[in-house]
Amino acid sequence: MGSTANGAAAERRTATSNGRSPVDKEVDFANYFCTYAFLHHQKEMLSDRVRMDAYYNSVFHNKHHFIGKTVLDVGTGSGILAIWCAQAGAKKVYAVEATKMAVHARELVKSNNLHDVIEVIEGSIEDITLPEKVDVIISEWMGYFLLRESMFDSVICARDRWLKPNGIMYPSHARMWLAPIRSGLADHKMSDYEGSMDDWHGFLKETEAYYGVNMSVLTKPFSQEQKKYYLETSVWNSLHPNQVVGTPAILKEIDCLKVTVEEILKVEANISSLVTKEDTRLCGFGGWFDVHFKGSEENPAESNVELTTAPSQDDGTHWGQQVFLLHPHARVNEGEEIFVNFSMTRAEDNHRLMKVDLGYSIKQSSGKMLPRVDKKFFIE
Amino acid sequence: MGSTANGAAAERRTATSNGRSPVDKEVDFANYFCTYAFLHHQKEMLSDRVRMDAYYNSVFHNKHHFIGKTVLDVGTGSGILAIWCAQAGAKKVYAVEATKMAVHARELVKSNNLHDVIEVIEGSIEDITLPEKVDVIISEWMGYFLLRESMFDSVICARDRWLKPNGIMYPSHARMWLAPIRSGLADHKMSDYEGSMDDWHGFLKETEAYYGVNMSVLTKPFSQEQKKYYLETSVWNSLHPNQVVGTPAILKEIDCLKVTVEEILKVEANISSLVTKEDTRLCGFGGWFDVHFKGSEENPAESNVELTTAPSQDDGTHWGQQVFLLHPHARVNEGEEIFVNFSMTRAEDNHRLMKVDLGYSIKQSSGKMLPRVDKKFFIE
Repeated sequence: MGSTANGAAAERRTATSNGRSPVDKEVDFANYFCTYAFLHHQKEMLSDRVRMDAYYNSVFHNKHHFIGKTVLDVGTGSGILAIWCAQAGAKKVYAVEATKMAVHARELVKSNNLHDVIEVIEGSIEDITLPEKVDVIISEWMGYFLLRESMFDSVICARDRWLKPNGIMYPSHARMWLAPIRSGLADHKMSDYEGSMDDWHGFLKETEAYYGVNMSVLTKPFSQEQKKYYLETSVWNSLHPNQVVGTPAILKEIDCLKVTVEEILKVEANISSLVTKEDTRLCGFGGWFDVHFKGSEENPAESNVELTTAPSQDDGTHWGQQVFLLHPHARVNEGEEIFVNFSMTRAEDNHRLMKVDLGYSIKQSSGKMLPRVDKKFFIE
Repeated sequence: MGSTANGAAAERRTATSNGRSPVDKEVDFANYFCTYAFLHHQKEMLSDRVRMDAYYNSVFHNKHHFIGKTVLDVGTGSGILAIWCAQAGAKKVYAVEATKMAVHARELVKSNNLHDVIEVIEGSIEDITLPEKVDVIISEWMGYFLLRESMFDSVICARDRWLKPNGIMYPSHARMWLAPIRSGLADHKMSDYEGSMDDWHGFLKETEAYYGVNMSVLTKPFSQEQKKYYLETSVWNSLHPNQVVGTPAILKEIDCLKVTVEEILKVEANISSLVTKEDTRLCGFGGWFDVHFKGSEENPAESNVELTTAPSQDDGTHWGQQVFLLHPHARVNEGEEIFVNFSMTRAEDNHRLMKVDLGYSIKQSSGKMLPRVDKKFFIE
């Protein structure tokens, strides 16, 4: 044997959390939480200046939301958000963390002399209990393309159990965006796929010649496996703004105070984008998100802070953008309109991963509508 | 958040199989079996010519072990070994596979017109039942450094349940080897570690300056995490024979017909190696294995086939060697003797991974014994 990796979870079956049988907690740890138990990974997130500045400013420019208040930090990780809330004047902060990172968070809290205010609780938010309801829930729950990881489920659960009637969510709002892009990535991925299939055919010849076994019956499943990997899986990318060839459109708007898990199980939208570049390639679509810290209607923020993961020349984030590549690419021209039918649901075999159905059609300036093209993608 | 990987299982707790609470099957799938559900990975193993030639020759040069016999293939994967056994004249072959790869194995068997002889059974060997006992158990169960993955447990279980009293194991014997080596890898790993710590100290300064939080209390756990990753984890490497600076020694010999799980839970050996190179660096130790196909005493092989993963100029395998690097390295000279106390046990949090205690001392030609150096390693 000789397994190169210890744990590539995509193929493994777990129950999904969308109304079907509950998730196996042990399996979920094996495939998800474990990642956040490494300080190396915490450091990556703590080094994301856009992410850090947004949360830092949202807290310290809106101290009135924290002074004398009780706060719950869902998935505190290293404890940084809990510490800022305490520094901003919170009376009490409950910092909940499911992984062993809770031990480090406790050390960090103590060494910053905030152990009288901050209580680090090791456990998953669904299991733990708090002695009181809270005024504010703060959490950095956003995954790639906002909803990957499905961690927001846990924040919603925390909100429904522990937030006071007039409480506030940090962040308060979230949006998912999609825009047509041009990129050389599509060609690279295609040649990777083609190379792997050439390699396969050489392998078939050798296996028959040297070992007397004809494996050609596996060509179809192998090519499907490779297609999924190279061509149908969305790609992390840090797009330059000039790679965006049309107007970005909003796929989903979320009010963190009101949204239910049911409402985020599926993201469906029909959008259109106006091509803004002269005669260029349409190589795919880029997806990103932003979140806002507006407080609530009764208790608004004094300073509205936005955290955006949109393509940016200078302010990239560790989230980057999720890119859905088209094979083959199309050509578009300024003034043309691209209509997109977008649908994202959770993977059957892992509720923290996603699958996407994306159909697009181009309306030329003449008014002529080109035939619609439908694609499937996996966000892994 | 924004987890880069979906599933790095090393940190996650599962029960161990060495007498303590049983392994969570679902978790084990998430972290182990899943890897073998990809044709891409099967192809890697099927492209390992040393591995393929050894099994192919062991079967076809010893047809008397297969003609008219019943065979069990444990972890058949693509089904290749089962197919060879059938082609060599087996009357019946039970090919057991725990992953969905069983579906492909079935297709392959059918397309090679062997579905009358080979029965592919999807399930883990511990759970399934066969209608009869078998004459031969064949399996390619070897992980890195032989025992990583702990798959041999399942082969032993199969042997005790399904092998006839005078049955034969393919392979019949296995050995673990260790030898002193020289390598530039140790310096690379050390500078990687040092670079990551320099980076950490810059990160501490920034986090305090920009975000008012002193994280220095995490320096020790972070450096421990990084040390484990860069310096204390054994490294896959394809060693050139001239990197071996002393005589290889056998750590463990296994008779696959007789060995018990208890006997492979721990590998302990005190060995010595004679330095064969003039004034050179001792940078670490390289570990590898070989297996043999000798049949049994009552029913020996006509042709003895060996599969070795020793350092080789031309015949590398996908197993390569596991390298245990020393920081700092030592110097040794021809004629000196290196005494090694080696102990390998299974990781508490994942019974398929290993930890190693390795102590060595150098006896100089003068007879003077240099002080013993003790190291800990993880095989992940």
